[in-house]
Amino acid sequence: MSQKDRAGHLDLDLVDRYARLMAELWTTAPGKVVLVVGGGAIGHGAVRELDPGDRFAALGLTRATFTVKWAWVEALSRHGVPGFPVQVGGLCVLRDDRPAAQLGAVEELLRTGCLPVLSGDCVMTPEGRLEVFGSDRVPEIFLGAERTFRRIRVAVLTDVPGVLRDGPGGNRTIPFIDADDPEGARTHIWAAAAHDTSGAMAGKVASLQELARSGAECVILRGAPDMAGLDFLVQPMSAWSEGIPRTLIARR
Amino acid sequence: MSQKDRAGHLDLDLVDRYARLMAELWTTAPGKVVLVVGGGAIGHGAVRELDPGDRFAALGLTRATFTVKWAWVEALSRHGVPGFPVQVGGLCVLRDDRPAAQLGAVEELLRTGCLPVLSGDCVMTPEGRLEVFGSDRVPEIFLGAERTFRRIRVAVLTDVPGVLRDGPGGNRTIPFIDADDPEGARTHIWAAAAHDTSGAMAGKVASLQELARSGAECVILRGAPDMAGLDFLVQPMSAWSEGIPRTLIARR
Repeated sequence: MSQKDRAGHLDLDLVDRYARLMAELWTTAPGKVVLVVGGGAIGHGAVRELDPGDRFAALGLTRATFTVKWAWVEALSRHGVPGFPVQVGGLCVLRDDRPAAQLGAVEELLRTGCLPVLSGDCVMTPEGRLEVFGSDRVPEIFLGAERTFRRIRVAVLTDVPGVLRDGPGGNRTIPFIDADDPEGARTHIWAAAAHDTSGAMAGKVASLQELARSGAECVILRGAPDMAGLDFLVQPMSAWSEGIPRTLIARR
Repeated sequence: MSQKDRAGHLDLDLVDRYARLMAELWTTAPGKVVLVVGGGAIGHGAVRELDPGDRFAALGLTRATFTVKWAWVEALSRHGVPGFPVQVGGLCVLRDDRPAAQLGAVEELLRTGCLPVLSGDCVMTPEGRLEVFGSDRVPEIFLGAERTFRRIRVAVLTDVPGVLRDGPGGNRTIPFIDADDPEGARTHIWAAAAHDTSGAMAGKVASLQELARSGAECVILRGAPDMAGLDFLVQPMSAWSEGIPRTLIARR
């Protein structure tokens, strides 16, 4: 979607093609889906080389990711989806590095059949420091809200078909990672993840293990704009085609 | 600050000069002030000629007013103020035309000495319609939060020194409007307000009477970039100079 080494890059054609897929998913399950978009080059550009002495250094991230969310909202609108960009930094703070979020407006958007579009953001700590709260972590904000969200599935669409056992270019996906086995993850999965050229897989797995320990069902799989559809994401995993490689991260 | 008949107009030099005044106010009372900025031409441009059949027609307002908030945040930053742009549409919904807001993040911003920068926005209703929620109404979101905000003063800085008794160009300000006397307001004040060329004063007075009935102390006064200071805004009104014309809207 975005090449992080190209300043300000966002492939609007790809965004549009994924928006079409999201439109089908939203049509299947309106009010049951939120979209969390990565910040890509625009987001990374805002938080590169932050001055650690400046407690407000990450401020630019809220503007950068608003820009990215808006690009998605416009693309979704072209495909008939009422998407609404939601600024996480305005409804969430960090407490002991955990998000405390208030989701009344997001719940209303879902209840009325809209598609909330969220992203990473900078969020405030009790110490008065704006911290980077990346898109990988955004699903955590829904975990304190069990009342509304009884079951949560986090599907991470990325450029590889899950966590790979055999390194870059391989396609042997590790089918299951136990949320309660960080040690196991560290030994062989971390090694595999090290092949991930973006370096982001290890962070994703750690975040998803944390989410899974709080009850979410997490899955990493390849996203591609020419996928037949994303509707399966809201079906029980038992109904998923065996032909879909993925890494499930959950409790046993 | 903005000429509404000039598309996209925002006078960044004026914004900067007001930001300097706000910086002094913030230095006097950090954590006790929020800034609500009008959308000006940028905001109005987003909601002109809305299609009433499109429940999402007002969506562009959240992007437009984010742009305006960001211009203020940048100006405030130049004057040393840690301002944070807060998207009202992400933390507030309308219920029976009254805002229901969740202000945890705003409270944290205040508690840590930041200056939340708010604006009008589009907000969701239970019927799934995005409604325009103008900057004049934004102070209402603080009224349900008495726990944190014990006393609320709303100071409306505008281009006239209050509600005028003697029409345009005059300077005889009506000193007091009873929040519980909408009839009195309608008879002579509405007539005076009709002289207001922007047509916005009548709406401001109605909003402020409503706010005052909920316990806020509201005051309309002239703002100008060459004012000696704004610090008086956080002092008791008994301490204000008699030389400051203003219209107070409160309960008797």
